[in-house]
Amino acid sequence: MPADIIAIASDHAGFQLKSMLREELAELGFAVLDLGTDDTESVDYPDFAYAMSAAFRDGRTKRGVLVCGSGIGISMAANRNPEIRAALIHDSFGARMARLHNDANVICFGGRAIGFDVARDCLRTFLETEFEGGRHARRVEKLNNPV
Amino acid sequence: MPADIIAIASDHAGFQLKSMLREELAELGFAVLDLGTDDTESVDYPDFAYAMSAAFRDGRTKRGVLVCGSGIGISMAANRNPEIRAALIHDSFGARMARLHNDANVICFGGRAIGFDVARDCLRTFLETEFEGGRHARRVEKLNNPV
Repeated sequence: MPADIIAIASDHAGFQLKSMLREELAELGFAVLDLGTDDTESVDYPDFAYAMSAAFRDGRTKRGVLVCGSGIGISMAANRNPEIRAALIHDSFGARMARLHNDANVICFGGRAIGFDVARDCLRTFLETEFEGGRHARRVEKLNNPV
Repeated sequence: MPADIIAIASDHAGFQLKSMLREELAELGFAVLDLGTDDTESVDYPDFAYAMSAAFRDGRTKRGVLVCGSGIGISMAANRNPEIRAALIHDSFGARMARLHNDANVICFGGRAIGFDVARDCLRTFLETEFEGGRHARRVEKLNNPV
């Protein structure tokens, strides 16, 4: 699997922002694995978080983007899988911290909460920022082994 | 267990905001179950999310407040437990949606990301807003039974 595959998924409320971020990812040179939804017909956000979860489990991707209306529901669902560290992001501070401290591998947005230009800025920061390691590695290890 | 018990926990970076929100909850008439941390000495945020998780499992609380530096790590850890629906909140739109659509039972904040007055506004909205049910109940049910 090339490191430059990024999976993307959303519900109906996130469909528009997902489509725009998908184009942005393609322009940046990533291979995009689009897990749906494919239009604005009402669907259930957990189904698309679990599609992302399956893509991680099957080794089809190591990074992802998820969008629902507020970003809240889809980030809850994604974090049910200990392989996923999904961060709901509103600004570049959050995007940077999610990578530096939490080694986040999925970035979540609220399609009704964030504008495209801010989301794009956050996405680029997320993709460009390396995990800091050190004491944060111990904490991330605990995240992967919930008690 | 009275319905008005609220558990609260944070790491060192969230300690100051936790202390302020704890006072706010007491002023609003809630019984606060403080799960630590108790000072600004460096600790690991997952330990405090898992303390919240244990309080849910043991029936000591049905609602909680979590704070770390960005709010990201502690919300990831809390959502490892399917009983918990933890929402990372930045504004009252998110706080309202988290209750209306996601029936969130834990609200998360970034102690280094949000000011006290905005966090207090979000907390009040979170506490005052009822779950909308309907189609959202089906989605929440899927959140509690991850695949």
